[in-house]
Amino acid sequence: MYRLVLLRHGESEWNRENRFTGWTDVDLSEKGLKEAHAAGALLCREGFTFDVAYTSVLKRAIRTLWITLDELDRMWIPVHRSWRLNERHYGALQGLNKAETAAEFGDEQVFIWRRSYTIPPLPLAADDERSPVNDPRYATLSPDEIPLTECLKDTVTRFLPIWNDEIAPAIKSGKNVLIAAHGNSLRALVKNLEGISDEDISQLNIPTGMPLVYELNEDLTPIRSYYLGDEDAVNAAMQAVANQGKAKK
Amino acid sequence: MYRLVLLRHGESEWNRENRFTGWTDVDLSEKGLKEAHAAGALLCREGFTFDVAYTSVLKRAIRTLWITLDELDRMWIPVHRSWRLNERHYGALQGLNKAETAAEFGDEQVFIWRRSYTIPPLPLAADDERSPVNDPRYATLSPDEIPLTECLKDTVTRFLPIWNDEIAPAIKSGKNVLIAAHGNSLRALVKNLEGISDEDISQLNIPTGMPLVYELNEDLTPIRSYYLGDEDAVNAAMQAVANQGKAKK
Repeated sequence: MYRLVLLRHGESEWNRENRFTGWTDVDLSEKGLKEAHAAGALLCREGFTFDVAYTSVLKRAIRTLWITLDELDRMWIPVHRSWRLNERHYGALQGLNKAETAAEFGDEQVFIWRRSYTIPPLPLAADDERSPVNDPRYATLSPDEIPLTECLKDTVTRFLPIWNDEIAPAIKSGKNVLIAAHGNSLRALVKNLEGISDEDISQLNIPTGMPLVYELNEDLTPIRSYYLGDEDAVNAAMQAVANQGKAKK
Repeated sequence: MYRLVLLRHGESEWNRENRFTGWTDVDLSEKGLKEAHAAGALLCREGFTFDVAYTSVLKRAIRTLWITLDELDRMWIPVHRSWRLNERHYGALQGLNKAETAAEFGDEQVFIWRRSYTIPPLPLAADDERSPVNDPRYATLSPDEIPLTECLKDTVTRFLPIWNDEIAPAIKSGKNVLIAAHGNSLRALVKNLEGISDEDISQLNIPTGMPLVYELNEDLTPIRSYYLGDEDAVNAAMQAVANQGKAKK
């Protein structure tokens, strides 16, 4: 049996402000820093150990990973960063407040932008200052690899190569793998791992800073999965993620 | 012309206590944390940027690198950790106070242990609790690769493969490389880079937390090198390193 641990970064500044973040490189909030320390301490207390870690090229995930590895006294393990684990690109919504956007366009439209599997938000213009085209961290990508918006299906498509080529082989070689990433790149992973349908994935919400443990059989089919930590706190956190895209009553 | 930046970790807890550290995984002191932030801020202010970083598997170097990359807003660049960049293994001296050891064995003997190119300190016993043999971070090494003591020549020997196979090719490919490592693994690097003799290397001291910049020609021969920062502070810091192995007067 293999074990894989997924960790969504702690609350970011823009999570706190309820803004669409996507590829914007926003840092953790004070609460997010605490969540990351708590996640690392919990993993340590529960006896988890890791041989290799994967993360995105965005600092809220990298810092969450750093803090977790520090708590685990495993700063020395190899860490692989990849844009393929980045958050879903939120197109022209990046920077906008979720509740204000819902007040303007309606809860239903925002739910579609947030949770539709195939409908992306409007794209950024290539010359928009928010565009990743001129960001040095994406300089080695081909132009058609750099998104200006994404639906979750697009995120799944660009995530799968690192899963198939690097992460799955690492797990099968017996390594204990930790992935510190984002709400939607982890939803892409979970959809693929559990074979969740395009419709049902809209109801899956992953809370910040709570380690999600998968036990997998030899072909990486999930045997069971669970969040580490207090069950009520996990449920409340998942519901809070679901409610973010609703206009304030 | 290529440019390479070397950074010895900030002051560690055992630097502060003037103890032989070697492969002991001691963390940075408060002063060391400040030195790392200052080094990163200085590199940022001077316009340095990096494409890839190398460090050891010891947390005082890794944390120094993390802080530096954070200050540079470059947390996303690839980081390669290797035992080949570890501090020199200090054998049975690890944990002992340098001045007390000098008072017991004499300044001259301690200078030989600290700075002789070919004479190592007495080795650790393989079953010593300080031995790296049972440390999981060295589990993939063959037994004859794991040192129980080292002279600087041994450190050069185990450092050279990562220089020749990974770091030098990265520099020659045009990448801006940052190496965050240790007093003696950086002395090994500088000896090799500058062709310093086995005798003269004993006089080279590298201070903590001060970026050492090398400008290199096409075959990686140094054109010039300099410490970033205030010249008097750099000289004082180098002299302080040289004085550490002397008995207190």
